[in-house]
Amino acid sequence: MKIDGEHLQSIWFDKESDTVKIIDQTLLPHKFKIIDLKNLSDACNAINSMKVRGAPLIGVTAAYGVYLALKENPRQLETAMHELLNTRPTAINLRWALEKMHESLRGIDEEVLVQKALEMALLIEEEDAAICEAIGNHGLPLLQSLWNKKKDHQECLNILTHCNAGALAAVDWGTALSVIYKTAGAGVPIHVWVDETRPRNQGSLLTCWELSKMGVSNTLIVDNAGGHLMQIGQVDVCVVGSDRTTRCGDVCNKIGTYLKALAARASNIPFYAALPVSTIDFSIRTGVGNIPIEERPADEISYVYGIDETGERSKLRIVEEGTRIKNYGFDITPAEFISGIITEKGVFQANEISLREALD
Amino acid sequence: MKIDGEHLQSIWFDKESDTVKIIDQTLLPHKFKIIDLKNLSDACNAINSMKVRGAPLIGVTAAYGVYLALKENPRQLETAMHELLNTRPTAINLRWALEKMHESLRGIDEEVLVQKALEMALLIEEEDAAICEAIGNHGLPLLQSLWNKKKDHQECLNILTHCNAGALAAVDWGTALSVIYKTAGAGVPIHVWVDETRPRNQGSLLTCWELSKMGVSNTLIVDNAGGHLMQIGQVDVCVVGSDRTTRCGDVCNKIGTYLKALAARASNIPFYAALPVSTIDFSIRTGVGNIPIEERPADEISYVYGIDETGERSKLRIVEEGTRIKNYGFDITPAEFISGIITEKGVFQANEISLREALD
Repeated sequence: MKIDGEHLQSIWFDKESDTVKIIDQTLLPHKFKIIDLKNLSDACNAINSMKVRGAPLIGVTAAYGVYLALKENPRQLETAMHELLNTRPTAINLRWALEKMHESLRGIDEEVLVQKALEMALLIEEEDAAICEAIGNHGLPLLQSLWNKKKDHQECLNILTHCNAGALAAVDWGTALSVIYKTAGAGVPIHVWVDETRPRNQGSLLTCWELSKMGVSNTLIVDNAGGHLMQIGQVDVCVVGSDRTTRCGDVCNKIGTYLKALAARASNIPFYAALPVSTIDFSIRTGVGNIPIEERPADEISYVYGIDETGERSKLRIVEEGTRIKNYGFDITPAEFISGIITEKGVFQANEISLREALD
Repeated sequence: MKIDGEHLQSIWFDKESDTVKIIDQTLLPHKFKIIDLKNLSDACNAINSMKVRGAPLIGVTAAYGVYLALKENPRQLETAMHELLNTRPTAINLRWALEKMHESLRGIDEEVLVQKALEMALLIEEEDAAICEAIGNHGLPLLQSLWNKKKDHQECLNILTHCNAGALAAVDWGTALSVIYKTAGAGVPIHVWVDETRPRNQGSLLTCWELSKMGVSNTLIVDNAGGHLMQIGQVDVCVVGSDRTTRCGDVCNKIGTYLKALAARASNIPFYAALPVSTIDFSIRTGVGNIPIEERPADEISYVYGIDETGERSKLRIVEEGTRIKNYGFDITPAEFISGIITEKGVFQANEISLREALD
């Protein structure tokens, strides 16, 4: 992504300092801070506290986490696997990246193990950026063709997205937002409705920031508003990411995605999920009840961070003390509500026969 | 409602001071403050700034606003009508209450006009409380019968509600929450999932407070979570209020209501709207495009109020400056998604033939 004219990734390896660099996404957009991950504990903490988030980025961070762990102690491969895997239960890329690391490192001699781990992590990083760019390229014709049908009647193509499935959720480009960047790059005039995405507000904090930095017109709405916008014809297409998709095409994504898919169906609006093939969990047929849904701390709902009147970043408690709270992180959008699954291998239908082709 | 053992209404007339008293609902739950409305401007401001909110309460406040206006100047009936009507465009009870006042005051001699206005406002207040209690009584059998079917398999009846359609939204009892209070009062063990209700958080701030004060078990969730809860069988019934309902049964209510109705339908969960007959606008057949949807200031989304670390009420800006925002206040749930409309006259189907019976 381009931030103030410079190319930037969400994660990269700095050879000079032998550290992994990330943007601390818990501080955006109020503060832009790059921090170092120096060891396993830093990597676990970055994932768990959501300094890095988004399925692809979690995977790459975990891969680097294995490298950092082995650099500390070449004998802690299994420990690293276990600790990193337990940081977030829903995203499948985390497991995918860790298994990829494990497979290539098991039985390797100690003297080359650390170097090999770094090489693998670098490769996963590089591949992720390429995969995300390919997702954008495969999604472009879908949006281009929608625009061709609409361009005589309206000024721009209105896209609704939920949470942040952008460059900040991956190494670069993103998944859903990659499709948007490629479409904008192809000259389609677009406007994005950004769901705030309670409780962590990744929409208002990350997606609005990222889209604005990339020069894409966007408007923030509360999560409650999308249904109304669809009813009054203000949304042409929805594009979201995914943390895990089953082999039948049930899409697990940030809590609230399902509600937008229902509204899109009710108004005959196409609803696409954009995701790397590594997000598809072929071991699971259907999502509801089978994909573990992470429950996050109540504090994510009861406290908000922002800028106070003196310009300082500060937090407030916005519910009464003692309020009982449940905080689910994800939900499942059943395949029947998904118009297509956009991957780096092409666009597939949300069913087992079609998705199996992504493995070829 | 009972607050700390004492009976309390959301609005009442204090004879001694000749003022109208309200709870300033913008400060709840962090601060409980009763304020005086002394003139037309106070009444308009209380409605516009949402110190009072909720369809029935807005109507009663407007009625008192007419009294306060005429007390200032007995010749400003038309001015008062106009100014009060323009405070909120969506809620129909506002117009209903004003028309009721206007009808009974037009042509009345100046010497008795002010007294007559007060009598009418007191009558509308009294009637509202009785109407809301009757709504609860008519809703009770619906929930009781649901519970009878479920009681062998689960510990309580799980009800989801959106926004605040409680005693705080009316003079007393509320609409949706009146049904809940009557059901709890009849001995049905209930638990309420409370939608946070962005952007003004009437769910977390008002409904959780009100239900807790009334001893009703409740859990706060973000607006995004209801679909997931319905998918996993954690919601038995939804009950919401309404700001305006068309003669065909399209229900206009707080933004986000429609998304929950879609999810309820997808999971075969009954979805009821509870409302006084005065909320039904027989002049409109369908809602989408015909009911004006209020757009509120962007600041409602970009700023939040809460308690800071020193225990003081404070506000924070939670989005980047310059973020483009659209803030719709309401949406329309088409009649096909409404299982029944619970009124003070009984329960009706969401269609014109059935709703006409409410006029008899």
